[in-house]
Amino acid sequence: MNPTVLTLLTDFGIQDVYVGVMKGVIAQIAPSVTVIDLTHQIPPQQIAAARFNLMNAYPYFPAGTVHVAVVDPGVGSERRAIALQLPQGFLVGPDNGLLSGLFTTYPVLGAVELTRSQYWYTPTPSTTFHGRDIFAAVGAHLATGIPLHQIGDSIDPATLMSLPVPPWTQHHATLTGSIQYIDHFGNLITNIPGSAVHNAEWNIVLQEWTISSKPTYSEVAFGDLLSLIGSHGWVEIAANGGSAQSRLNLDVGDPVQVVLNLDSL
Amino acid sequence: MNPTVLTLLTDFGIQDVYVGVMKGVIAQIAPSVTVIDLTHQIPPQQIAAARFNLMNAYPYFPAGTVHVAVVDPGVGSERRAIALQLPQGFLVGPDNGLLSGLFTTYPVLGAVELTRSQYWYTPTPSTTFHGRDIFAAVGAHLATGIPLHQIGDSIDPATLMSLPVPPWTQHHATLTGSIQYIDHFGNLITNIPGSAVHNAEWNIVLQEWTISSKPTYSEVAFGDLLSLIGSHGWVEIAANGGSAQSRLNLDVGDPVQVVLNLDSL
Amino acid sequence: MNPTVLTLLTDFGIQDVYVGVMKGVIAQIAPSVTVIDLTHQIPPQQIAAARFNLMNAYPYFPAGTVHVAVVDPGVGSERRAIALQLPQGFLVGPDNGLLSGLFTTYPVLGAVELTRSQYWYTPTPSTTFHGRDIFAAVGAHLATGIPLHQIGDSIDPATLMSLPVPPWTQHHATLTGSIQYIDHFGNLITNIPGSAVHNAEWNIVLQEWTISSKPTYSEVAFGDLLSLIGSHGWVEIAANGGSAQSRLNLDVGDPVQVVLNLDSL
Repeated sequence: MNPTVLTLLTDFGIQDVYVGVMKGVIAQIAPSVTVIDLTHQIPPQQIAAARFNLMNAYPYFPAGTVHVAVVDPGVGSERRAIALQLPQGFLVGPDNGLLSGLFTTYPVLGAVELTRSQYWYTPTPSTTFHGRDIFAAVGAHLATGIPLHQIGDSIDPATLMSLPVPPWTQHHATLTGSIQYIDHFGNLITNIPGSAVHNAEWNIVLQEWTISSKPTYSEVAFGDLLSLIGSHGWVEIAANGGSAQSRLNLDVGDPVQVVLNLDSL
Repeated sequence: MNPTVLTLLTDFGIQDVYVGVMKGVIAQIAPSVTVIDLTHQIPPQQIAAARFNLMNAYPYFPAGTVHVAVVDPGVGSERRAIALQLPQGFLVGPDNGLLSGLFTTYPVLGAVELTRSQYWYTPTPSTTFHGRDIFAAVGAHLATGIPLHQIGDSIDPATLMSLPVPPWTQHHATLTGSIQYIDHFGNLITNIPGSAVHNAEWNIVLQEWTISSKPTYSEVAFGDLLSLIGSHGWVEIAANGGSAQSRLNLDVGDPVQVVLNLDSL
Repeated sequence: MNPTVLTLLTDFGIQDVYVGVMKGVIAQIAPSVTVIDLTHQIPPQQIAAARFNLMNAYPYFPAGTVHVAVVDPGVGSERRAIALQLPQGFLVGPDNGLLSGLFTTYPVLGAVELTRSQYWYTPTPSTTFHGRDIFAAVGAHLATGIPLHQIGDSIDPATLMSLPVPPWTQHHATLTGSIQYIDHFGNLITNIPGSAVHNAEWNIVLQEWTISSKPTYSEVAFGDLLSLIGSHGWVEIAANGGSAQSRLNLDVGDPVQVVLNLDSL
């Protein structure tokens, strides 16, 4: 049988041993699992960035993968610790909206609160590191095949905390949205899905720039701006061989208008 | 049989292929071992930070884990290369104090100097990269089950180089210590163990601030300072949803006074 | 049988889930492969830095290792996607010079263009993320044992794009080269191979400094500059316990003159 995959996504950074310690806990409980880091560089406590990244990673993993995601500013408070079963795998993390990109997109096949301390690393968890003492341990137990309903008390999915993305709107040929994420390359990723442009060409008017849609980077001169549907499926603004963020100096939340060229359809 | 775990902790960073090359060497010698990164972001040559992180990670790994730790400003000099056996696993690294957080805390079941070149990657190691040519190779051989006494020449544990942490002191209800580490979140971790506060409440007076002990972050307003026993067991100063380091601008070695509220016992 | 090793080297950074998603694709196709990160911190689009790092890592991996390397400013353009077989393993990546450090050093046993979409992750790959949709998938298929000639259409190795390193020259006892890479520690690595100094001692004259060759760091005072043959086999300039880059403020491409002391032979 193939080894089960368990992914980790946190804001713990890579300077300290927090992530390594989670992997030690996992190795004790599920020594044969394959652990894959999604990222540990979510900016501290930025649940929205974590939600975005987890949502984009999920479709690429094998059925049965356990995703443990910990960006948890409310650790030690009354916020619930939860685990969910989706068609293609499991999610484990705090009930603070981090998982809501996925559970509002895919059907929830099961939802539990992590109240059963026999599946924790210790019955007396630290008040500040549930990543180690609860989430890593529960994720590892799920990876060994323990069923979801056994690992916690069933809860109503309707009670899960949601963190909605800002809406985008359409008025005739104009789609109005905003920047939801800026990646390592300085690509500005909007909240407008690629499906909304229906194979049309489009322009984005921003400051003194008119940025045209192109199928790929190399269709514009080195350093020039373009817009395309990024690899995760959203309309984005990029620069060929450079950083759109450095050129435009925009930030998450800034508005973007996409004007479709209906003649191009 | 479960795969043996081998951890890596270095100051090699993640920009170059130094860590990848160590893993290539390990894969040649011990292809089935599970390799876990503790961190490679120890500030260059900062043995004390390496010592602190290794000490905090060790308790969370399975019995038999091999910890290879390389922060090695004296590479190529007369400093010894060593391997130690502790109750829960093995330590491999330079004899420069890096391993002393552990061997002064746990019993040393065996200690050897790594003089036997048949367990190195090459009998003519680079003078600047023993991480690849000696430590990774010896760690991998230990992970395959070769016993410690075979891999080097026995040495007296009393001769190992120690790097002590600065002491903390108690005078009535006042504990005086210092900051020994600052983590990714800007938490200021002191050298005062949580056991020293005996379940009392306490205050830390620093600059214009009086920082009270709280069981968890969310007991203070967003952005406010608090003190608690961190997940690794030391008294620390944190900020709810922020960085205590940015607020207080303290550094490793700066003094901290903890005043216990004896009425709270 | 030992698990096959697959390495990844990219400029994708570690902030986003791009690397994690490649690993998800690999886990779907080759669940038992051991994935090792070489680095993901190549500066964006810097093919030369990628070429240098891949070349230095290759010799340390087990026979049969698959190296997937993606620094790909021409993604979506006409540049070819290729896979090569070398004596000790496979290379997968764009045909843009990244792989040329290796295929000009070792014999090419086979070369194919990745034209067969049944080995891609999807027959309709993203125009911006061939790392996920082509290279990770093809690398994973090679790791499962599918032979090179089956995975693409054979091409003539003489047509591969090469990215030569700048030449170094010798005039009597003076070797003139340049800095080809600066590592995490601030070591300045030249393009002059260690074999060119023939066991002589040497001096490097730079600005107001005369930097002497030493067998190891500790032969000079803390903070002082020295020159040695680095662990990857090139002449380099280092500082004991510090950064030569911070001291000298040099950059990649800056010239370096090595004057051999022929009396030392």
